Amino acid sequence: MANRYPAPALADVPEDIRARILEVQDKAGFVPNVFLALARRPDEWRAFFAYHDALMLKETGSLTKGDREMIVTATSAANQCLYCVVAHGALLRIYEKKPLVADQVAVNYRKADIAPRQRAMLDFAMKVCLRSHEVEESDFDALHAHGFDDEDIWDIAAITAFFGLSNRMASFSNMMPNPEFYLMGRVPREKK
Amino acid sequence: MANRYPAPALADVPEDIRARILEVQDKAGFVPNVFLALARRPDEWRAFFAYHDALMLKETGSLTKGDREMIVTATSAANQCLYCVVAHGALLRIYEKKPLVADQVAVNYRKADIAPRQRAMLDFAMKVCLRSHEVEESDFDALHAHGFDDEDIWDIAAITAFFGLSNRMASFSNMMPNPEFYLMGRVPREKK
Amino acid sequence: MANRYPAPALADVPEDIRARILEVQDKAGFVPNVFLALARRPDEWRAFFAYHDALMLKETGSLTKGDREMIVTATSAANQCLYCVVAHGALLRIYEKKPLVADQVAVNYRKADIAPRQRAMLDFAMKVCLRSHEVEESDFDALHAHGFDDEDIWDIAAITAFFGLSNRMASFSNMMPNPEFYLMGRVPREKK
Amino acid sequence: MANRYPAPALADVPEDIRARILEVQDKAGFVPNVFLALARRPDEWRAFFAYHDALMLKETGSLTKGDREMIVTATSAANQCLYCVVAHGALLRIYEKKPLVADQVAVNYRKADIAPRQRAMLDFAMKVCLRSHEVEESDFDALHAHGFDDEDIWDIAAITAFFGLSNRMASFSNMMPNPEFYLMGRVPREKK
Amino acid sequence: MANRYPAPALADVPEDIRARILEVQDKAGFVPNVFLALARRPDEWRAFFAYHDALMLKETGSLTKGDREMIVTATSAANQCLYCVVAHGALLRIYEKKPLVADQVAVNYRKADIAPRQRAMLDFAMKVCLRSHEVEESDFDALHAHGFDDEDIWDIAAITAFFGLSNRMASFSNMMPNPEFYLMGRVPREKK
Amino acid sequence: MANRYPAPALADVPEDIRARILEVQDKAGFVPNVFLALARRPDEWRAFFAYHDALMLKETGSLTKGDREMIVTATSAANQCLYCVVAHGALLRIYEKKPLVADQVAVNYRKADIAPRQRAMLDFAMKVCLRSHEVEESDFDALHAHGFDDEDIWDIAAITAFFGLSNRMASFSNMMPNPEFYLMGRVPREKK
Repeated sequence: MANRYPAPALADVPEDIRARILEVQDKAGFVPNVFLALARRPDEWRAFFAYHDALMLKETGSLTKGDREMIVTATSAANQCLYCVVAHGALLRIYEKKPLVADQVAVNYRKADIAPRQRAMLDFAMKVCLRSHEVEESDFDALHAHGFDDEDIWDIAAITAFFGLSNRMASFSNMMPNPEFYLMGRVPREKK
Repeated sequence: MANRYPAPALADVPEDIRARILEVQDKAGFVPNVFLALARRPDEWRAFFAYHDALMLKETGSLTKGDREMIVTATSAANQCLYCVVAHGALLRIYEKKPLVADQVAVNYRKADIAPRQRAMLDFAMKVCLRSHEVEESDFDALHAHGFDDEDIWDIAAITAFFGLSNRMASFSNMMPNPEFYLMGRVPREKK
Repeated sequence: MANRYPAPALADVPEDIRARILEVQDKAGFVPNVFLALARRPDEWRAFFAYHDALMLKETGSLTKGDREMIVTATSAANQCLYCVVAHGALLRIYEKKPLVADQVAVNYRKADIAPRQRAMLDFAMKVCLRSHEVEESDFDALHAHGFDDEDIWDIAAITAFFGLSNRMASFSNMMPNPEFYLMGRVPREKK
Repeated sequence: MANRYPAPALADVPEDIRARILEVQDKAGFVPNVFLALARRPDEWRAFFAYHDALMLKETGSLTKGDREMIVTATSAANQCLYCVVAHGALLRIYEKKPLVADQVAVNYRKADIAPRQRAMLDFAMKVCLRSHEVEESDFDALHAHGFDDEDIWDIAAITAFFGLSNRMASFSNMMPNPEFYLMGRVPREKK
Repeated sequence: MANRYPAPALADVPEDIRARILEVQDKAGFVPNVFLALARRPDEWRAFFAYHDALMLKETGSLTKGDREMIVTATSAANQCLYCVVAHGALLRIYEKKPLVADQVAVNYRKADIAPRQRAMLDFAMKVCLRSHEVEESDFDALHAHGFDDEDIWDIAAITAFFGLSNRMASFSNMMPNPEFYLMGRVPREKK
Repeated sequence: MANRYPAPALADVPEDIRARILEVQDKAGFVPNVFLALARRPDEWRAFFAYHDALMLKETGSLTKGDREMIVTATSAANQCLYCVVAHGALLRIYEKKPLVADQVAVNYRKADIAPRQRAMLDFAMKVCLRSHEVEESDFDALHAHGFDDEDIWDIAAITAFFGLSNRMASFSNMMPNPEFYLMGRVPREKK
């Protein structure tokens, strides 16, 4: 089982993309497959990561980095996307500093050891993921009750929507998670 | 029933975004609501439209503009996204020059008056939309048999995935289609 | 894509059926396909239209003609019946004098520009359409709260049930809506 | 748990309806509840039974009376309609002269002791019942292979569609089967 | 349609199993097929019936024998298991002394003539049967309100879970109910 | 989030159960929660583990220990059972000597790095898990083609059915996997 579409060699991707990939490699110690897999279409790559960064790296709002990865992990599990569950589950463990949380959220978030506000956040994310046409004002109320404001809610919905795109791209093209992700955040980190 | 989030005034959006919006307005005669609704977050707006353009305006591959709007209309109907069915149904009618095709594709694409290769294209798009985790090699074979190559298949999947994002954003935020869309392509165009 | 079963010529149908068909043709300017498609079996035709008329032409109760066509449009969309969505969507636009309402109701009635009592009416109709075995007393209470009495509720259920029959007949036999329906009620009517 | 709507007294129903009811009572030994329950609306009653008779009493085509009741029992079970499963299960046992067949068909028709052509017939009926929008030419082919012609297929679809209406009316209004039905056809009939 | 796996002859099963089977035969007048069908694997047989007895013959708690068979009948119907609906429906009729209740519970338990506490019991059993991952504290509250304590709730869940196992074994292996079950409890018992 | 029902102290469980628990503890280094959680009901405990052992420890047939744990992991993921996915995923990694395989099988077994015969095995297990009423002879043929005989197929079905029971018990009672399981088989084992 390997990626259905050949990934370009790093040497062959446009300069701006290569720069970002090298930066990631430098930080993570490896190149997550999504970076090369999508690079075969530079314009889509650029839009994908611009969207990703706008949602996942933004510094305003009340969603922590852990919250965001939790949304990605839960909704990607609902979409049965192997790449995203494994890769973002790793980030979730790291940001939340909880080695067990990603498996819990992926299998059944209702049983996960998370805060009540995170549970409410995931209930909403799952609704946007699975039946967005039924979202209504009472869903906003439920989140307001946990301290999320309308901008936070937009963040939850947009992260869910964006990774729904990512899930479909990864699944249709057989994108496989790098082996490194599976263990990340499960054991104490060594130097690096 | 109105958009859940206030749209910015055109005067308040960044210059690059305003330029594009004015260009669209000039061409269409009105500003489609998605352009202003998303403009409240400029970075997301830029990524969204960069992605949109990379998929919908690309000039290679065998998918016609009508094919692409047909994918959007069918999968947005499956996601029950009012904005996208109405707006892209309008474009579908125009590009295909078939005033009836959008309603057919939206209600039940199996009954639509479309070519067999378009039917195969929509079968695949619906699978990516609704159960992308089950896509497998035989799905590629079915499309190859109709003359689609692997790049075309990527296009079908990516368009489906991107508008799955768009559908969720529009539904959660109550984005309403402009009244102008409902009639476009149904009656012979007058000057404009 | 054409009707799976040949429709009889108007000249070959029984006198009473022909009279009604000519009357409809006179009023509408064309013969809706359902009238000829079902006429190949006169006894079923007579029962079908007797049932139709008992529900759709009755003059008692609080359901307006627009309400009734709205029920038909919403539930036919849930059943993905092309004929009924297009034909009754046309009537809905005309009776409600709202050119946009049929597309809204067909794609996602929760987003449609309709009255709260119509929303409650459609919630109930959809439950009868999709999971009638779960209807219970609280569903009646919800409608009473909007001023519907038990006879109105019977009307909503019966219209939903009858068009569920109609949807299945149309879909299995590939009954196609007349082209005239697609545009009806979208543009100001000319004399006729 | 009783019928949600009061049934009229036999003395209060129109003459033509009463005559039919008395005829049924004379033959069956009791009045099946559907006859009185629907009689509160005479026009609907007349259309309902005219439709019923056109489909269930017709004397042409290859469907036996047992086949027809088998379709009703299987699809009514799919719709979880208590009245129709019990009442028509009774008729199925009687016409097929098989005391066990109705329970088998109602619980899981795939396990029922029925002929291969009946299995094919039920596969199609269930498709019309549950996802009529997906019916296509290959479904007709499968039935032709078992000797059903296009008129028989219309019969299967129409019976399924009509009892889908009946199921919804019975479930929403809490119509309860007469106690007599439960045992009919299970034990050898005595005089009567 | 016969059992997919040959059942051993009674003479060939281990002594302890034969003894139990003879005891059942003595009491019921026939050997229910499940006893011989599973006896081809003695260790599984012993575990199956030990589990069965621990749940169905236990003498503590507030669940009556009728309650337990009602849970089995309702959830086995949801799983479309012919063997268990027919066999345990028979026991349900006998224990509840209600000849009609099993068919009601099997077709649509919401319409059955049962006590409100039994309705609550079945609502919970169906949730454990169909979406156990969604069970939460409010489900326990609903049962407490009807007088069930936590041990009763364990019983309901365990009976549902055990017969979910039984349903899958019976369906996959085509286990057919003995003809005797179909009539049991429907007519007054004769001596025996 | 903790187990809904208090587990007994090891000192309080019957001797035979305690002996087995101590044996497991000795081998694994900890007591898996299921052993104590179920021990509050000794008869159910004994039946549960007798069944478990009959299926999981049997020494005949072509299913390897890895195959069996793979079935458990895949079907428990379909049932969203946190305890079983985590605990049996650990065993799967160990038996298959593949640190990545459990996460793959749990998220989307179609993408897992497993043998074609294992894929066929899981396709069947998932059908037994999710729609056992639809199993038919062609499902047996598909497994025969991969070298499974009828006894192997019984094993696959029985393991699926048994863990369906286990999944429901664990989910309804909030049984949480021991932290030790999450990491087992992911990193090279140290002495122990």
